[in-house]
Amino acid sequence: MTGTLSILGLGPGDPELLTLKAARLLGAAPVFAFFAKRGRPGHARTIATPHLNPAAEELRFDYPFTTDLPVEDPRYLVDMAGFYDTCAETLATRLAAGQDVALLCEGDPFLYGSAMYPFDRLRGRFPVEVVPGITAMSGCWSAAQAPIVHGDDTLMVLPATLDSATLATRLRHAEAAVIMKLGRHLPRIRSILDELGLTARAIYVERGTMPGGHAVPLPQRDDSPAPYFSLLLIPGRQNPR
Amino acid sequence: MTGTLSILGLGPGDPELLTLKAARLLGAAPVFAFFAKRGRPGHARTIATPHLNPAAEELRFDYPFTTDLPVEDPRYLVDMAGFYDTCAETLATRLAAGQDVALLCEGDPFLYGSAMYPFDRLRGRFPVEVVPGITAMSGCWSAAQAPIVHGDDTLMVLPATLDSATLATRLRHAEAAVIMKLGRHLPRIRSILDELGLTARAIYVERGTMPGGHAVPLPQRDDSPAPYFSLLLIPGRQNPR
Repeated sequence: MTGTLSILGLGPGDPELLTLKAARLLGAAPVFAFFAKRGRPGHARTIATPHLNPAAEELRFDYPFTTDLPVEDPRYLVDMAGFYDTCAETLATRLAAGQDVALLCEGDPFLYGSAMYPFDRLRGRFPVEVVPGITAMSGCWSAAQAPIVHGDDTLMVLPATLDSATLATRLRHAEAAVIMKLGRHLPRIRSILDELGLTARAIYVERGTMPGGHAVPLPQRDDSPAPYFSLLLIPGRQNPR
Repeated sequence: MTGTLSILGLGPGDPELLTLKAARLLGAAPVFAFFAKRGRPGHARTIATPHLNPAAEELRFDYPFTTDLPVEDPRYLVDMAGFYDTCAETLATRLAAGQDVALLCEGDPFLYGSAMYPFDRLRGRFPVEVVPGITAMSGCWSAAQAPIVHGDDTLMVLPATLDSATLATRLRHAEAAVIMKLGRHLPRIRSILDELGLTARAIYVERGTMPGGHAVPLPQRDDSPAPYFSLLLIPGRQNPR
């Protein structure tokens, strides 16, 4: 009898935006695992803390980099693949021994979540359950009180890391957009939105549902680098009746 | 002192996919309101039931149509606007009397949710809090165990009600897509996906996290009309390492 891998979405930061299902599975798991930046407590771990089984084994996977190499860099891909291979094998030893394992994940696991990499390696070998979480973008548009899509609007979710020409073309093909992973790309994104006439509609949201979170119209935000937990919302048609 | 309108996302159907925050606010609200189709219990009402304050006042808003007029039909827009005006005024009487009101919403309120229409009418008049919910699409890609976007993939969320030329163009501008509101449009969508070479990658999901929910590759699904609670997933790049 092998264990089940439960991949748990823990939501965007507000500890009350956890689901009843994730809370129950956190309390039951004899082993839990999470990714974190070296030297940080880990957002998923912090959200999970009040719900964990105190006797559970804790597996912490520190990301191998403290600075961000661009994803196009071949070293990034090779190093990250090796890292995820090792994490997956650590999880596999517990699962093979019959232990259920909860893999914690900020936001929703299957929307840009790191948990997809162990999932890709372990699916088919062990039973897997995936529990969706509140996405960072839902947390942000709710906190900003910005309805994102009505009626037959199209929503485009795209990372700021795309090249400018691709970003501009894609933004022409949707009424609404969410631009993730802003970081140092904010000034470049702003000039694309200026060209498309979208700046006045855009809302900058930082740390969405976390302490100190706030939302401002993009024209009120300066061009200093944006933290990892920030995004731009471009709501679709406003106030249809 | 006026009351606060709390717009509560209740998730995609599985009653355990409710957040701790929504559960707490449901238990506290002296008045709750929800939309439902005439003669049906209402999905949001069903999810909320175990958490409601038994002494709370219940406001049920029956949609004025039992069949779906196309959204382009002018009668649809006029009738729906009048309906939402009336709902908003009913909520306003309670809020003006100092009562807090919980407005229940399936999925996430600001992603195609009906709650946006009362919100548009009441914002600025009363304090509003918006609690995000697990979206139907997150519920579906989790249930189908289909990671939707990795790395710098773009995700497009679009309604099947768009015309075929627009749909085809938009689908060319994203690695991943979710096609909502399938209904009678399934055969037309399939032929668009055939032309774009996307049919083999598409996954049909019906009733996601609800009882009887299931996911099948689109080539295994026939062309009979799809129920309201169904969508197509087109995952982005698969198995990046």
